[in-house]
Amino acid sequence: MIFTKQVISESYWKVSIDNPPVNVFDPEFSVQLRDLMDQLEANEQLKVVVFESANPDFYVAHAELVNIFEFPKGEGKTGLSKSWPDVAKRLEQAPFVSIASIRGRARGLGSEFIQAFDMRFASKEKAVFAQPEIGIGSFPGGGGLERLHLLTGKARALEIILSGDDYDADTAAAYGWINRAFTDKELDAFVDNLARRIASFDLKIIQKIKATMNARAVLPKNEHIMETQVAFFASLTEPEARTRIKALLEQGLQTYGDVELNLAKYL
Amino acid sequence: MIFTKQVISESYWKVSIDNPPVNVFDPEFSVQLRDLMDQLEANEQLKVVVFESANPDFYVAHAELVNIFEFPKGEGKTGLSKSWPDVAKRLEQAPFVSIASIRGRARGLGSEFIQAFDMRFASKEKAVFAQPEIGIGSFPGGGGLERLHLLTGKARALEIILSGDDYDADTAAAYGWINRAFTDKELDAFVDNLARRIASFDLKIIQKIKATMNARAVLPKNEHIMETQVAFFASLTEPEARTRIKALLEQGLQTYGDVELNLAKYL
Amino acid sequence: MIFTKQVISESYWKVSIDNPPVNVFDPEFSVQLRDLMDQLEANEQLKVVVFESANPDFYVAHAELVNIFEFPKGEGKTGLSKSWPDVAKRLEQAPFVSIASIRGRARGLGSEFIQAFDMRFASKEKAVFAQPEIGIGSFPGGGGLERLHLLTGKARALEIILSGDDYDADTAAAYGWINRAFTDKELDAFVDNLARRIASFDLKIIQKIKATMNARAVLPKNEHIMETQVAFFASLTEPEARTRIKALLEQGLQTYGDVELNLAKYL
Repeated sequence: MIFTKQVISESYWKVSIDNPPVNVFDPEFSVQLRDLMDQLEANEQLKVVVFESANPDFYVAHAELVNIFEFPKGEGKTGLSKSWPDVAKRLEQAPFVSIASIRGRARGLGSEFIQAFDMRFASKEKAVFAQPEIGIGSFPGGGGLERLHLLTGKARALEIILSGDDYDADTAAAYGWINRAFTDKELDAFVDNLARRIASFDLKIIQKIKATMNARAVLPKNEHIMETQVAFFASLTEPEARTRIKALLEQGLQTYGDVELNLAKYL
Repeated sequence: MIFTKQVISESYWKVSIDNPPVNVFDPEFSVQLRDLMDQLEANEQLKVVVFESANPDFYVAHAELVNIFEFPKGEGKTGLSKSWPDVAKRLEQAPFVSIASIRGRARGLGSEFIQAFDMRFASKEKAVFAQPEIGIGSFPGGGGLERLHLLTGKARALEIILSGDDYDADTAAAYGWINRAFTDKELDAFVDNLARRIASFDLKIIQKIKATMNARAVLPKNEHIMETQVAFFASLTEPEARTRIKALLEQGLQTYGDVELNLAKYL
Repeated sequence: MIFTKQVISESYWKVSIDNPPVNVFDPEFSVQLRDLMDQLEANEQLKVVVFESANPDFYVAHAELVNIFEFPKGEGKTGLSKSWPDVAKRLEQAPFVSIASIRGRARGLGSEFIQAFDMRFASKEKAVFAQPEIGIGSFPGGGGLERLHLLTGKARALEIILSGDDYDADTAAAYGWINRAFTDKELDAFVDNLARRIASFDLKIIQKIKATMNARAVLPKNEHIMETQVAFFASLTEPEARTRIKALLEQGLQTYGDVELNLAKYL
């Protein structure tokens, strides 16, 4: 089980992510995430869900690169396919509130994963953010080109995506990538208090607020993300990307070690 | 008189807000505010107006909840009705510059009040911001769902509105809710200097800058705010909201005391 | 030569700006900038270009005001005219990445110049930003009314443009005017490292990222900037502007001295 559900109450669930050794987002992660979404949506009393990592060094490392062509893909026009962009859209449109509480690395698809949540809070000491795809001869294919600039503005999104570099939680908060950074000691209490507050309020009102905000704000378009996703998978078949990925895998990508801990310097 | 006007010069006015005990935005506030807008618009030499509170603990506490159904309401299609969304639109489109200088609590409609100004500056020690409507079984009905995300982005607007919690001036500045936070000692000098600078410039140019900016930037749509306002008033007739409001009033809402000072913990 | 090109490598160029005494953006600057753009676009291997100033006190002071009516102007509909708005659009759409590394004053057209780059980094001690046009009886005519609010939001853009005041790098970073501020000692190493990283990545991917981001994000419309530019030039023929400009020139504008160093207090 990659996702372990903790039922704090009928209306407040916590989900712990555990996919050793570094929490890669692999085809199995994708399949189980969709099943989890089915469960979340089926709980009609659910008001708020918090996603944490079981691994303090890795929130979600990035997309798994060996079997990446086996990821569930779909047309995504209906919002009901198995592919990640549709799951992200389901989170955005969900009748419950989703919160990412981040320790460890959230890079690539891991960063795009958290961008799909309603809110993001992170540990100043332990969280690391990056869109490192340029370093493997590609670009963000799971929403980063569509969602990140809505959080950070275009100039900072270009900096993040073109540098492929690591960002700490303070810089991520200054850029709007996350809502706020807290000391590692404060993070859990803040997030738990916020989730309990939300869970104490009226379900219909929570749904009205999310629905109205989604109707007022600029949302990323799934057809854009699907279009970018197709180009992303195509880019991975190019010699440039194959060479870069092979070199990183040989150095230790996807295993617990210095390449994953300090990816930015290996790109 | 809720609004006391101080004529610094023909082109620079200050307005002090005083509606004891906690500066609630009540039907009388609404009527007098519209009259004040008439005066501001009638002064064709006016370049800048600063709104302050006479009460250091409360800027504008929130909408008055006992007689809330007596608020002036209107169709708002013409921008000339008596309702708050139209007054807010008049501030946005005004030929003069409006500045909120904030000490004390600006919650609910008080927060939506300041969002309608061209700029917002606040005291680090004394200002408190919140959209606490969720705590009375409702949601922001005076523009908060339409304007706040334009200032803070969607993720932070959702956090603010779904938590109903209090925010200090530093966090409000980091989120873009206000332009900048100053120490209480520095605030008045900064705002007065800024207003005097603006008042020293050419009136036609000030008007050209505001008009062009309003033509270029994304503005909230009054029909959206009106639609949300109708739903807001409807939500207050629900048993959930009636129960929550009644409990708060019995504990001391709208009187000077701990409930108003620390509203977030009572919701 | 106003622009001196340093070829770090085929794919990474640096450009130093030197137009003594204070780096005004004058008609000759405009002509040479267009020639430089031709060179940059002609280098099909170029991945990244960094613009610095040869003068630590002035990045680009502002538009030259004596001969301002001799600036190259054009219709700009095709994106190929000689006028600044079209050069700015060429930078935005360029197949390479443009970075402004800022020491000294970037005011007026100097501020609009940096807004056209993909990214902006600045020295905490030495950079100063302003849109001082209101102080000469005019308004930003080179994109400031169209681009700045996309970086800072409307409220902060109005504050900047209506105050005409100077802003330090920390405030500019907090407002989003620049990506980030660094201590003067750190700035060069950060920018050089970022440029070398980008230059180490695949050219086609860099182009794909910029093109996709430009297709997803909100971009300023050149017809709006052209419209504002026409009104800007017209405003300079008004008696109010002529008087204000004449007074500033007599006090020492466009020479190295206190008026240029501390312009905000002379407006």
